[in-house]
Amino acid sequence: MTTAGGTRTRTATGAGTAAEPPGDAGPETWLRHAREVTDPVLREAVGTLHPRARTVAGYHLGWWDAQGRPVSAGWGKAVRPALVLLAARAAGARPGTAGSSAAAVQLAHDSSLLHDDIIDRDATRRHRPAAWRVFGLAGALLAGDAMLALAVSLVREDGRGTPAGAVLNDAVQQFIGGQFEDIGFEERADVSLTECTTMAARKTGALMGAACRLGALAGGADETRATGLDAFGRSLGLAFQHVDDLLGIWGDPGATGKPAGADLHARKKSLPVVAALSSGTPEAAELAALYTRDPSLDDAEALRRAAALAERAGGRRRSADLARRHLSEALDHLDGTGLPRPGTRPLRTLAHWLAGRDH
Amino acid sequence: MTTAGGTRTRTATGAGTAAEPPGDAGPETWLRHAREVTDPVLREAVGTLHPRARTVAGYHLGWWDAQGRPVSAGWGKAVRPALVLLAARAAGARPGTAGSSAAAVQLAHDSSLLHDDIIDRDATRRHRPAAWRVFGLAGALLAGDAMLALAVSLVREDGRGTPAGAVLNDAVQQFIGGQFEDIGFEERADVSLTECTTMAARKTGALMGAACRLGALAGGADETRATGLDAFGRSLGLAFQHVDDLLGIWGDPGATGKPAGADLHARKKSLPVVAALSSGTPEAAELAALYTRDPSLDDAEALRRAAALAERAGGRRRSADLARRHLSEALDHLDGTGLPRPGTRPLRTLAHWLAGRDH
Repeated sequence: MTTAGGTRTRTATGAGTAAEPPGDAGPETWLRHAREVTDPVLREAVGTLHPRARTVAGYHLGWWDAQGRPVSAGWGKAVRPALVLLAARAAGARPGTAGSSAAAVQLAHDSSLLHDDIIDRDATRRHRPAAWRVFGLAGALLAGDAMLALAVSLVREDGRGTPAGAVLNDAVQQFIGGQFEDIGFEERADVSLTECTTMAARKTGALMGAACRLGALAGGADETRATGLDAFGRSLGLAFQHVDDLLGIWGDPGATGKPAGADLHARKKSLPVVAALSSGTPEAAELAALYTRDPSLDDAEALRRAAALAERAGGRRRSADLARRHLSEALDHLDGTGLPRPGTRPLRTLAHWLAGRDH
Repeated sequence: MTTAGGTRTRTATGAGTAAEPPGDAGPETWLRHAREVTDPVLREAVGTLHPRARTVAGYHLGWWDAQGRPVSAGWGKAVRPALVLLAARAAGARPGTAGSSAAAVQLAHDSSLLHDDIIDRDATRRHRPAAWRVFGLAGALLAGDAMLALAVSLVREDGRGTPAGAVLNDAVQQFIGGQFEDIGFEERADVSLTECTTMAARKTGALMGAACRLGALAGGADETRATGLDAFGRSLGLAFQHVDDLLGIWGDPGATGKPAGADLHARKKSLPVVAALSSGTPEAAELAALYTRDPSLDDAEALRRAAALAERAGGRRRSADLARRHLSEALDHLDGTGLPRPGTRPLRTLAHWLAGRDH
């Protein structure tokens, strides 16, 4: 294991100075803006870690390779930081106010990815070898710990003390609960769509809700509006998870960065699979048999057959319908806040894009 | 994996109502008092976790067995909570003020034990099967995450906002750094005693220093006194680690809860071993050969021989000398705070006991 050399951290004063896009900008512009605002705050925060933890964290975040040489692999779409920043904007915050909350939410998310990849033995993350394959179990585990403690400690810097810290901790506790439930599903044949939705609400919805609530707090929103923005983020998280699970089966591996059929190969009880399994169709029974018979999902032909069965059992359609329904709920929650529509427009733009994306 | 049933959490209002021992009480009385004050706060905090995370955490903390049936296996000696509470007392805090910091420090410590046991594949913890053996890697990893986020979020409740949270995060980052270094030592033959001491200062000293600083903050101490108490805890942590490492080789397995020679078997570069290896004696060369030849430390006879070599190379004596020296430094730091001696007496009592304990 080497320490990351060379890559200098930039100061957080750069945060927020990136010119804000116009209100009618497109979703990818807002996401790029969120990356530009959050990246220097993230780099400064990660710069405080022990050199070995920093090496692993920065590799995972796409800043450098395993030897510490700068690369630009990127740390993902920046959906959660964008939610923090755009919720703050909708609540009337000055640009750049919510930078440390945006970085904190991303760090908490990335900590869970490092640990998830260990648990699931996932070999690939964001088109590169997962950190545990490069730095070993200990390296990825300890770096995830370092990022998690840093995240919870960082969020308080946005100013309001107890609420913000408690908000992130609550979300972390919920996504850990969702991960426990997700793992428990692997051993069960009778997972209902309701249980699976509850799990996804914890695993994905809670942190996206917390991202919006932290933005709302940074913007000085009252409790009612903060709760409305939180509910927007939670519903959007469910829509997002349906889309993510659909892409995990029917997405283009070149675009998603995951091998084709990876979720089926791992026998994941993802939302479309559970929707298919609970359809009561003959295809559901056949898919259930494939999921329980042990060596049957090890070749490309079996994976294609499982995907076709999930589709014929209605899993794909039902999951896509639910994604649209959760998006619609999210937009209702946003309208319910009574925040001025010009201010919430980027959140709506982002929400529509997330629920219709292909990667 | 089952959820913990039956065991009710007590309210935190119980904290601090346990009658405080007299100033001349013995070390075991202070440790018992720390357990009594901290346990209800810990139970309330752990009660907020997801049921599955709670099950693992409470098993690890000795509150229940794997099925959730109450047991009283205990969560260790409570050294760190005792340091928080006694530093708070020395700084003039009202009894019970520092309960949530005491619980936070214990949670951070236990989170690291859960993860350490995964990394080291240690089968036993506190005389019981380690959590990863009972709940699997995922269960122990996720429960450790839950406890870590909870710890950092909990510490702010003692009131002063940024400083307390940053103090615990700094300590966590240092002990993670120490763990990285400890792991790195396994692959190297040339670890110096200075490097090993730096590692132990991070891995053990930082959290014991932070425990004292958090107590000082809760007691309203100024920065100079908080720094003095922190330095006391750090030096005491080094003394403590020497003693711990000595017990890991020459301790009574019945008292320590670890199998005889476990640290030698795992080829740990512990402080007495590094002191022996760097002695320049013929025994050092022989011990080094035993440590590098692969199957040679797998039987009791080889372990006895390694322990005898470490002793003849002077590792045991040197480590014991250093434990006394760090204890003496710790007491000097405590005197340097200028805090009234009657108030610091329990800290001195505890320090002497920790540096001379046999389990």
